[in-house]
Amino acid sequence: MGGWWVKWAAINDALYWRVLRANPELMRRVIRLASENVNSGGGGPFAALIVKDGAVVAEGVNTVFASNDPTAHAEVNAIRKACAALGGFALRGCEIYTSSEPCPMCLAAIYWAHLDTIYFGNGCEDAARAGFDDAYIFRQLSLERAKRAIPSEQLLRDEALESFRLWEASPFKREY
Amino acid sequence: MGGWWVKWAAINDALYWRVLRANPELMRRVIRLASENVNSGGGGPFAALIVKDGAVVAEGVNTVFASNDPTAHAEVNAIRKACAALGGFALRGCEIYTSSEPCPMCLAAIYWAHLDTIYFGNGCEDAARAGFDDAYIFRQLSLERAKRAIPSEQLLRDEALESFRLWEASPFKREY
Repeated sequence: MGGWWVKWAAINDALYWRVLRANPELMRRVIRLASENVNSGGGGPFAALIVKDGAVVAEGVNTVFASNDPTAHAEVNAIRKACAALGGFALRGCEIYTSSEPCPMCLAAIYWAHLDTIYFGNGCEDAARAGFDDAYIFRQLSLERAKRAIPSEQLLRDEALESFRLWEASPFKREY
Repeated sequence: MGGWWVKWAAINDALYWRVLRANPELMRRVIRLASENVNSGGGGPFAALIVKDGAVVAEGVNTVFASNDPTAHAEVNAIRKACAALGGFALRGCEIYTSSEPCPMCLAAIYWAHLDTIYFGNGCEDAARAGFDDAYIFRQLSLERAKRAIPSEQLLRDEALESFRLWEASPFKREY
């Protein structure tokens, strides 16, 4: 009986924790920010925010037009601001709420930032239907190098390896 | 005979153009910048530059440590600077030289920036051996959403779609 009780309590705890963690009001907030961003003309219909221990650490909207920067997606902007606010280059223990599923650039940025969880509103397919290249770029990244639409060519690998050898021996070497 | 001659000339032209375009001196320059970046401690052993019509438009090095920003990879920094220099959010007609094959974040950024060609020194596998997560993140991105290491969950899609509907009707709508 004790075994069942412990299992039931663990499942219940996990569900409660889950419900607590996904906060629909935060999703409504990023949706509102995304819509406002369309009306301001600063960029695409996207917004994101980063939460730590239930508190919002940073908000970002897509500023591709306003800042003339194709990397200024909502998630990237939010990650930069959160790192600045928390004073580090990793966001372990944080979650991201984004009005639309992260594109490959933003998803990889989320991995580099070591975020814990992603909550998203619109899906990748919705973004594709609205004319955004997310799904296309996901497919491109999954192809072998030689089959991608943007050609790439390796040059001087032997010389380039020297930078990595220096890194291996560097006192500044840190994991990120 | 004319057919053969035309074909030979076309192949010759393509080869000549190719040789002209891949400039090993520019690769040496980014390798040097990458090595200098290790010694300065600003970030990882990575540098990139962007070229238009044979002229260098922008250079970038990895500043993850110096700027506390996990998105401040060399390619992203170079793209941002090139866009600022050229006054637009697209880099059509430009090429990127990078000391190491772009990670998924940077490769996706290169797609969003519409760069023409990528020249790289170290390969993705070299970066993996030096302890960088590029290959791991490539594998993660190619998985279905539910199988990725960072969990993600969709919330309030019906409400989120409103931002896309606004975008469709917006006078600020532009392709990027």
